[in-house]
Amino acid sequence: MHINAGIAALVGALVLGKRKEASLKPSNLTLVITGAGLLWFGWFGFNAGSAVAANGLAGAAFINTNTAAAMAAISWMFTEWIHTKKPTILGLASGAVAGLVAITPAAGFVNIKGAIIIGILAGIVPYFAVATIKPKLGYDDSLDAFGIHGVGGTLGAILTGIFADPAINEAGKGLLYGNPGQLVTQLIAVVVTMTYSGVMTLIIFMIVKGVVGIRVEAEHEITGLDESQHGEKAYNL
Amino acid sequence: MHINAGIAALVGALVLGKRKEASLKPSNLTLVITGAGLLWFGWFGFNAGSAVAANGLAGAAFINTNTAAAMAAISWMFTEWIHTKKPTILGLASGAVAGLVAITPAAGFVNIKGAIIIGILAGIVPYFAVATIKPKLGYDDSLDAFGIHGVGGTLGAILTGIFADPAINEAGKGLLYGNPGQLVTQLIAVVVTMTYSGVMTLIIFMIVKGVVGIRVEAEHEITGLDESQHGEKAYNL
Amino acid sequence: MHINAGIAALVGALVLGKRKEASLKPSNLTLVITGAGLLWFGWFGFNAGSAVAANGLAGAAFINTNTAAAMAAISWMFTEWIHTKKPTILGLASGAVAGLVAITPAAGFVNIKGAIIIGILAGIVPYFAVATIKPKLGYDDSLDAFGIHGVGGTLGAILTGIFADPAINEAGKGLLYGNPGQLVTQLIAVVVTMTYSGVMTLIIFMIVKGVVGIRVEAEHEITGLDESQHGEKAYNL
Repeated sequence: MHINAGIAALVGALVLGKRKEASLKPSNLTLVITGAGLLWFGWFGFNAGSAVAANGLAGAAFINTNTAAAMAAISWMFTEWIHTKKPTILGLASGAVAGLVAITPAAGFVNIKGAIIIGILAGIVPYFAVATIKPKLGYDDSLDAFGIHGVGGTLGAILTGIFADPAINEAGKGLLYGNPGQLVTQLIAVVVTMTYSGVMTLIIFMIVKGVVGIRVEAEHEITGLDESQHGEKAYNL
Repeated sequence: MHINAGIAALVGALVLGKRKEASLKPSNLTLVITGAGLLWFGWFGFNAGSAVAANGLAGAAFINTNTAAAMAAISWMFTEWIHTKKPTILGLASGAVAGLVAITPAAGFVNIKGAIIIGILAGIVPYFAVATIKPKLGYDDSLDAFGIHGVGGTLGAILTGIFADPAINEAGKGLLYGNPGQLVTQLIAVVVTMTYSGVMTLIIFMIVKGVVGIRVEAEHEITGLDESQHGEKAYNL
Repeated sequence: MHINAGIAALVGALVLGKRKEASLKPSNLTLVITGAGLLWFGWFGFNAGSAVAANGLAGAAFINTNTAAAMAAISWMFTEWIHTKKPTILGLASGAVAGLVAITPAAGFVNIKGAIIIGILAGIVPYFAVATIKPKLGYDDSLDAFGIHGVGGTLGAILTGIFADPAINEAGKGLLYGNPGQLVTQLIAVVVTMTYSGVMTLIIFMIVKGVVGIRVEAEHEITGLDESQHGEKAYNL
């Protein structure tokens, strides 16, 4: 799901092009942190609730989810600190979300050691997608849907094929537990999802672009969509 | 309850008069949306929790509440879009609250089709109360307590008399199910509530106005009550 | 726990010294209120959840917690109103937190009358710690960790020795119920905690100050730590 969304966002951002006057900084970091906290909390319902039962598997998914999010938040912070010399709260929040995304396919299959490793990698690999791949490709992805959800989701899907522990869930057995076939299956699923999502998104965007257009007028964009399209401003302080 | 509050607010606003320097725009729309979300969530406890049991009736009240709020949010948005050419997020939030208000008397009595119709009407009738009646009457109601709660609550009380389905709750049977008497009962209740609330509020406001006054000094009002009455400002950015 | 934190904060603030350009006002009061509300709600899990059971004692702890917080919020508001002529919303939030802190040691031991008295005193004693002791001692405690948590926690610990009612919890019997020894025990515990926390915090701060330093450069402090240390700003409006 996150791979799908991430690839669609990348294709969409490339077709759409950059914003004219792009301040790439979030307008309100306190709301970023509040939102990341709500996401973290709600994710427990998503991952642990998928068992639709209050059993041991739901407990494993719950603790895996929390552990991976916490590890990824810390791991992203240290990666950014080493890379740019300054750790940011936006990075900490991005890391937590990347950890939640990466653990989602794995939450009901891996043990706690797997969750720790997935979390650490989810703070490093998506970080470099955002910090180095994005500037090189030059796409304008204000929420880093590709870097965090696309790359984080792909990472999680592949690592599930490595760390899936049959002692946690007998339905999944990864490379480390003697089943390299699961990793191959995961890789095929990733490639198929990316191809399908990328091609279909491109077709849909091209049709919409041709029929109704996908950008507002330049003047409206510079004024801001809040005022030009909705007639309101976020703050009247 | 909402009819009572809405009428009291209208009478109060008329007795009180307009603000001197009224910026009628909300100061912080992100908090408006956060607050509307908290209201929506908390309302489930109010409507579905009133059964004081986890039974089928509580389930019906829960799904009716969510459906009506969602329908009214969308319906208000499209009504405003058609009427002013610009849909606002303030309108979407207002519609959701109007839907919650209108479904409250009906939640434990109507079926899902009734909830959909009540929701759609709750995005249209209170919208025009706010967009056309308010400017004509000239009262200054910063939270639209009359337009959203008074008009929305009246609408919900009347529609309950039409859509109450004995298959959902045998204690209520509306016009559509062969009992026009229920609609008459609802109309009488609405008129009695409005009269009692309006007259009593007028008496209370007049007494308070005569004894201690109901407005701050003009100078304090222009400075703002936060600073003049409480010695603090909401933001020191 | 709160006595420990409060004393450690006082020692830390005294060793650290004042901020260079200290605007002692909160930057965003709407977030202060949102945060106080989250604390109040979460505190139920802390106090009532400590019974690790849904029994009568948990119920008593729950209602004591809510009652003391509400009483302290109102009591702080009126104390400030009488003392400075202007009640503030920051004071109301501070009072609620002081009430939560003070009731914490007592929640599982006192009856509802005890909770009301503890709440009222928690809005008065910590208020004067913040409003008169802080300016006299001249320490810079931006969150009032000493005034609210240290003084409020000490007050609660002592009052538990007075109001602990064996009818609520047979494990605790206070002065009012014929056991002055409990008050002596509480006083000894308070003095020991304060001494241990104060001395250890002083030693730790002195070591850290000598080894790595405890203040940023003056220039960075004036620019603000968000920008100088983290390279970001809370708001880009």
